[in-house]
Amino acid sequence: MDIMVIPSVNEARTDNLANKTVIVIDVLRATSTMLTALAHGCSAIYPVETVMQAKQLQQPGYLLGGERGCKKIPGFDLGNSPFEFMDDQVAGKTIIMTTTNGTRAIQKAFKASTIIAASLLNGKACAKEAAALKRNIVIICSGTQDVYSLEDGICAGQIVEELQNCLQAEGVELNINDFGLSMLYAFRQVQGDMTKALLDCANGRRLCSLGFTEDIIYCSRMNLIRLVPIVQDGKLIASPSINSFERF
Amino acid sequence: MDIMVIPSVNEARTDNLANKTVIVIDVLRATSTMLTALAHGCSAIYPVETVMQAKQLQQPGYLLGGERGCKKIPGFDLGNSPFEFMDDQVAGKTIIMTTTNGTRAIQKAFKASTIIAASLLNGKACAKEAAALKRNIVIICSGTQDVYSLEDGICAGQIVEELQNCLQAEGVELNINDFGLSMLYAFRQVQGDMTKALLDCANGRRLCSLGFTEDIIYCSRMNLIRLVPIVQDGKLIASPSINSFERF
Repeated sequence: MDIMVIPSVNEARTDNLANKTVIVIDVLRATSTMLTALAHGCSAIYPVETVMQAKQLQQPGYLLGGERGCKKIPGFDLGNSPFEFMDDQVAGKTIIMTTTNGTRAIQKAFKASTIIAASLLNGKACAKEAAALKRNIVIICSGTQDVYSLEDGICAGQIVEELQNCLQAEGVELNINDFGLSMLYAFRQVQGDMTKALLDCANGRRLCSLGFTEDIIYCSRMNLIRLVPIVQDGKLIASPSINSFERF
Repeated sequence: MDIMVIPSVNEARTDNLANKTVIVIDVLRATSTMLTALAHGCSAIYPVETVMQAKQLQQPGYLLGGERGCKKIPGFDLGNSPFEFMDDQVAGKTIIMTTTNGTRAIQKAFKASTIIAASLLNGKACAKEAAALKRNIVIICSGTQDVYSLEDGICAGQIVEELQNCLQAEGVELNINDFGLSMLYAFRQVQGDMTKALLDCANGRRLCSLGFTEDIIYCSRMNLIRLVPIVQDGKLIASPSINSFERF
């Protein structure tokens, strides 16, 4: 089985994603936040690229969420901090979400057989889901404005580690690309203090300076939530294959 | 001081390299081989992009070296294996060298203030040389056909580690990009068995299959040679700043 990790959205070629399982990562913060919303009972999330698309999809009862420059979009109900997606406001609701990088990566993957939204919070669950699908896997690190972001690469390493654990026990031979191997090694080095690794990287420093230190600490918690967001009919829902999950 | 690591040649923008110290890495095998030649008394190496350019520069007494598809170019004196550059044949000679990736990366860096050719064999010496120049540093991993190669990234991590050792002791604040930090972490994870890391990566597997296992083992030896190849007037020479070096 081929496992290819791609360092940023603009390096992903849409045609290379056909018939594959694609795992999209945006640890700070889109995929962590969308996972958190689903874990708190949100029924579905439409990931869209632009503010205009978000407003066009708007219906009574839907919530608008997202950020530009790490900040809530004027007129939207919610920003992009996971803590905004934990209260009862999101339970049973559909959310339309637009962020600078993560939602764009999900849009780009639409030719894939399956699209999974992963973060450190659910890396193990995502790896198990992807392993069970038995197709070649592409892991896209969203990055930031087309530049590689450390937190997404480290999360890719976490998922490669978990895929190895799942699949090598079954005797499946894995062909991991050089970038994926490098991320696996980097993950192993920092896994003992993931919060520090995230606080030290570019997005971590930027979010800290904007007052979002708690977001980083939360997003650095590995395997807190056993729920896998997958794309179905253009929206993210909780995969039915994993029913049990841990809340706080 | 800014330290930026770039994953492959095609991601380097020539204009961003002006007034900087640029370190070019092609561990398997161009920069390892060129270093080995200089350490064995070769007086200068012209890195050129094409076979035609190499033949046009040819003069009586010059040697032609290089590879295409890991193999020696027909009609050339030498291939790209470091073991071909160790005997007395190279002492005192000028070599014209063309390889698929490494020489192209050096060509691309020609706007830099200083260009250093680094490999695992001389990572520490290169870091010391670059640190002493007190300019912002760009480290270019040559990669393979525009794709990131693990061995070059790991060597970038080795150099970032050594730069930290040199410069933080002097109180210099380092601003390392996310890709550089990731390579630093990956290097720390694999430094205890560098040969295995190189045998496991894509170029390592390819070179093994072509019978070059000894080349990989040699190229994985860290800080074997205290000599720094720098570009001067279009050719690589041993930097005069470090006079002593270890041979075998």
